[in-house]
Amino acid sequence: MIANELKKEITTPDFAEQPTRRATSLELEKILYKPIKVLDHGFVRVIDYMGNDSAIVQSARVSYGPGTKHLSQDKGLIFYLMRHRHTTPLEMCEIKFHVKLPIFVARQWIRHRTANVNECSARYSILPKEFYLPTKEYLAEQSTKNKQGRDRKLSNEEAERILSILKEDSTKCYSHYTDMLNEDINGNTLDESKPKLARELARLDLTLNYYTEWYWKIDLHNLLHFLKLRCDQGAQYEIRAYANAMLDIVKKWVPITHEAFEEYFLHGAHISRKGLAVLKQLLSGQQITQSESDMSKREWDDLMQNLK
Amino acid sequence: MIANELKKEITTPDFAEQPTRRATSLELEKILYKPIKVLDHGFVRVIDYMGNDSAIVQSARVSYGPGTKHLSQDKGLIFYLMRHRHTTPLEMCEIKFHVKLPIFVARQWIRHRTANVNECSARYSILPKEFYLPTKEYLAEQSTKNKQGRDRKLSNEEAERILSILKEDSTKCYSHYTDMLNEDINGNTLDESKPKLARELARLDLTLNYYTEWYWKIDLHNLLHFLKLRCDQGAQYEIRAYANAMLDIVKKWVPITHEAFEEYFLHGAHISRKGLAVLKQLLSGQQITQSESDMSKREWDDLMQNLK
Amino acid sequence: MIANELKKEITTPDFAEQPTRRATSLELEKILYKPIKVLDHGFVRVIDYMGNDSAIVQSARVSYGPGTKHLSQDKGLIFYLMRHRHTTPLEMCEIKFHVKLPIFVARQWIRHRTANVNECSARYSILPKEFYLPTKEYLAEQSTKNKQGRDRKLSNEEAERILSILKEDSTKCYSHYTDMLNEDINGNTLDESKPKLARELARLDLTLNYYTEWYWKIDLHNLLHFLKLRCDQGAQYEIRAYANAMLDIVKKWVPITHEAFEEYFLHGAHISRKGLAVLKQLLSGQQITQSESDMSKREWDDLMQNLK
Amino acid sequence: MIANELKKEITTPDFAEQPTRRATSLELEKILYKPIKVLDHGFVRVIDYMGNDSAIVQSARVSYGPGTKHLSQDKGLIFYLMRHRHTTPLEMCEIKFHVKLPIFVARQWIRHRTANVNECSARYSILPKEFYLPTKEYLAEQSTKNKQGRDRKLSNEEAERILSILKEDSTKCYSHYTDMLNEDINGNTLDESKPKLARELARLDLTLNYYTEWYWKIDLHNLLHFLKLRCDQGAQYEIRAYANAMLDIVKKWVPITHEAFEEYFLHGAHISRKGLAVLKQLLSGQQITQSESDMSKREWDDLMQNLK
Repeated sequence: MIANELKKEITTPDFAEQPTRRATSLELEKILYKPIKVLDHGFVRVIDYMGNDSAIVQSARVSYGPGTKHLSQDKGLIFYLMRHRHTTPLEMCEIKFHVKLPIFVARQWIRHRTANVNECSARYSILPKEFYLPTKEYLAEQSTKNKQGRDRKLSNEEAERILSILKEDSTKCYSHYTDMLNEDINGNTLDESKPKLARELARLDLTLNYYTEWYWKIDLHNLLHFLKLRCDQGAQYEIRAYANAMLDIVKKWVPITHEAFEEYFLHGAHISRKGLAVLKQLLSGQQITQSESDMSKREWDDLMQNLK
Repeated sequence: MIANELKKEITTPDFAEQPTRRATSLELEKILYKPIKVLDHGFVRVIDYMGNDSAIVQSARVSYGPGTKHLSQDKGLIFYLMRHRHTTPLEMCEIKFHVKLPIFVARQWIRHRTANVNECSARYSILPKEFYLPTKEYLAEQSTKNKQGRDRKLSNEEAERILSILKEDSTKCYSHYTDMLNEDINGNTLDESKPKLARELARLDLTLNYYTEWYWKIDLHNLLHFLKLRCDQGAQYEIRAYANAMLDIVKKWVPITHEAFEEYFLHGAHISRKGLAVLKQLLSGQQITQSESDMSKREWDDLMQNLK
Repeated sequence: MIANELKKEITTPDFAEQPTRRATSLELEKILYKPIKVLDHGFVRVIDYMGNDSAIVQSARVSYGPGTKHLSQDKGLIFYLMRHRHTTPLEMCEIKFHVKLPIFVARQWIRHRTANVNECSARYSILPKEFYLPTKEYLAEQSTKNKQGRDRKLSNEEAERILSILKEDSTKCYSHYTDMLNEDINGNTLDESKPKLARELARLDLTLNYYTEWYWKIDLHNLLHFLKLRCDQGAQYEIRAYANAMLDIVKKWVPITHEAFEEYFLHGAHISRKGLAVLKQLLSGQQITQSESDMSKREWDDLMQNLK
Repeated sequence: MIANELKKEITTPDFAEQPTRRATSLELEKILYKPIKVLDHGFVRVIDYMGNDSAIVQSARVSYGPGTKHLSQDKGLIFYLMRHRHTTPLEMCEIKFHVKLPIFVARQWIRHRTANVNECSARYSILPKEFYLPTKEYLAEQSTKNKQGRDRKLSNEEAERILSILKEDSTKCYSHYTDMLNEDINGNTLDESKPKLARELARLDLTLNYYTEWYWKIDLHNLLHFLKLRCDQGAQYEIRAYANAMLDIVKKWVPITHEAFEEYFLHGAHISRKGLAVLKQLLSGQQITQSESDMSKREWDDLMQNLK
């Protein structure tokens, strides 16, 4: 979708206001269609949704029947469901996002297969000249401890050198892209005497930081699983930025479920059999060291980290 | 869910009317929550939905970008998508049904795995005394040609004999069910001096025609696939009755997509390589018989059936 | 599949021994095709499998590349994967079971949607006279604390009364089933003067404890998820019996993965944010009571149970 | 995985030959682990598989029981299953590929969600200097009729111009990639005085024609669906090259199923309701033109194309 079209689409509400008797989330209605900025050119915006906290309760009551009455309040039932990983009622809610994101982020994101996707096709359309450049704050050295992580921030000088490389390559590749297409983003032919290379081939010359767009629809259960993994410090910063924006959206959409998610998933911890054995010993007043625990150094450190 | 509770639930709208800026289907709003009767005690009712014909177009335009403009009308685009099996935009719509159905139907239905389900649990709740008895019109002999089909209707006398067996067994089993539970549907103990058998065990004595209930949520693409298979004459009559009720609902929800579905899926036909060869020969004015066609008798008959 | 046919199938190996260069599990080969008895008439047997512990390591090394070398041993890598829930390499293994199980167990089982299933169709075939009767040991009262659980064992006298009801109803319904079919299990017509009711209708009269059969194929990641839920004490005893049989099979198939599964999933525990706060306080030597913890009585009890 | 390691891995068989009683495909065993070259640097090779034509028949017979006997031969049963789209027995077979492919192809491929994937991570490993350059034969102009297709081949001169742009940009970006990493593919630091940019960031500078690798596992039903779409002339040439290589593999693995797939899927055609009406009229000897048919020009042309 070309830039101007998008701008128009974003500023024009897609559908007129209508009365509905479906489950509604008042807070989410307020931000419907509004782009929430992520990274330098990206965004997330909610296009549609289905269900709310009450709809989750409604679905759960079908399973459990009148027996659930003593869980007198909705909040109690939702916390019960989340605590026991009875997540099928969460599958009864859906949300549909419009996301603009760099291709390398899209490649990580799409690994979550339990969603529906309509992506802008570069076989079909010409991509606009929009590429991601990290801010200096997020340009960091390769971690030596964690093979897939970042470590120390680069010096200002070094960061500038990196950014100028990225910017120059992205710019040059786009110029060649346009040149091979022999067409600009508005569909104007550049040189009538030359052929136009097929779009599906010209795109080969674009770098992985170019932006793409998609509609992405997922149920709440699978979204929370995505957020658990992608809000984690181990996730690459750039996808984490999107995950955090979506976590805020979840808070507006289903505030009770969001609270339970924080309690049991985001800020809880899984303790192994050996970890439980260590805890029991410590609680009974005994001392125990890593070497006595039969746990690896790393597992031990992780356990202690959770208890600090 | 016990009968009285359900009745109350059905007559009381779940959610108050609210304004929304989401995609809305006016015709579907009119029947929201209303049970549509199926078989003797069953029903289908729509609890929630997401999307409409315009939302499908909106999602498709993200994929195809401004290039789709020449498909100037929504109808043209939807027919194009259906004709070419570009069904990902259909996945952007969801619908959530509340269904009451006999257990043997539920067993066929659940084989479609691409849906979300919350079923009433007989481990948890006591099932009401509601069982399916076919009408005489649908009591038929085993087909001799099609191993999994029905054939000639039974005589009235024979039908009455069958119905009385089914009714008697269902009634007797339910009476034993209640007896073993030592509790009636309203939770009243029958005999204080006796124990109450665990519900998860007492249910073993129920026959497969007892009714169960579930919330069943599915995206439009997978729903149409379900309907293609279950509206077919080869499907068992009882599940077909539900599929036909849902097909009517689809017509209200997304009328253009429904029309394209009829054109390309429901009333179209798949012709094999050999079938195409036969057609070419016939169209060129030549004669060809089954034995010359290299097709089996059954394939030939199916082909001729499609062209009658 | 009728009883005699099955017996023949089970005693005749399906495929002759062949050399293969695929990943092989020697221990699993030994029990291939052998039925492992479950409940009174049920069984589980392995029909085919794909992958072993080494294949998991092989797949993981593609993702992590040469960087994984320092995890010098396969065991270390598999434990690492399980600890961090990097379960995609587990998806690279598959197993295919032939299972004979009561219908009410099949109904719980099929809720796990991430598997492939071919079930014996009672529209097509006549089911044999095989129904499940619990042993007295497992006939128990409805739990009053847990709405979907069992409690105290029934007295011997009461158990006999229940069993005789179940047996009588199952027997009578089968006799009516045969009568309506007007055909015995071997295909002999019973009364030439009478019609044969369609099989898809006659089956309505069977009770939920009748046995069915299926081929069920699943990847290792989803199998472990199934086992986590169904080996749990909260699962109904009858499905737990199958899950435990399959857990033993997993131990033969992928012994290292099985060990890690026990360590991190089966015998580990998830602690919530509030639970972690309580632990920190206790470990620092402070006292804390349930009422001070902001946890419900039940959550508190669960936490203390994990630390006993 | 770096180039040298891979070479070693490919030439060393992964697993020693073992006897197995599982279903085996002799023809597929012969090419196990052997890379089949695709494009300039890519390949497909089979790492593992489960099932064969007989295993499909075996699974189908569970569903249909002894009633299937009259389909006396396996071939008849497989053709029957494919003709009626009873594809669940096909889901009982699995195949696991190791694929090396350009990133832009991987992006199309991954849209098929019903597979298991382990991809080489460029957060973790350094990608080798291998990028795709089309051969001149496949460098073509943008189609004017089909927005997402290619048309006329470029002139030799024009093709050379395009190739030199692609080659130069790919080379330059890789040189900057190495420079930012400050490390070569063998892990040698280039300049001790400079920092090493995190791998997850350096990769942003690579173009979409760089090669990646993955293990990709899928069941036969979903593989055939993938092949139906990706062997089609409408698919981009580069992914079609992979699909065709896999179609040859399917032929070796399950020759009967492959033959049925060609008959009913690859070389069959779907005819719409209107198309059937036109055929009926033509076969009855009447004339009909596009304008009388109520079909669009394009639909009409497609129909006539199928009957030529």
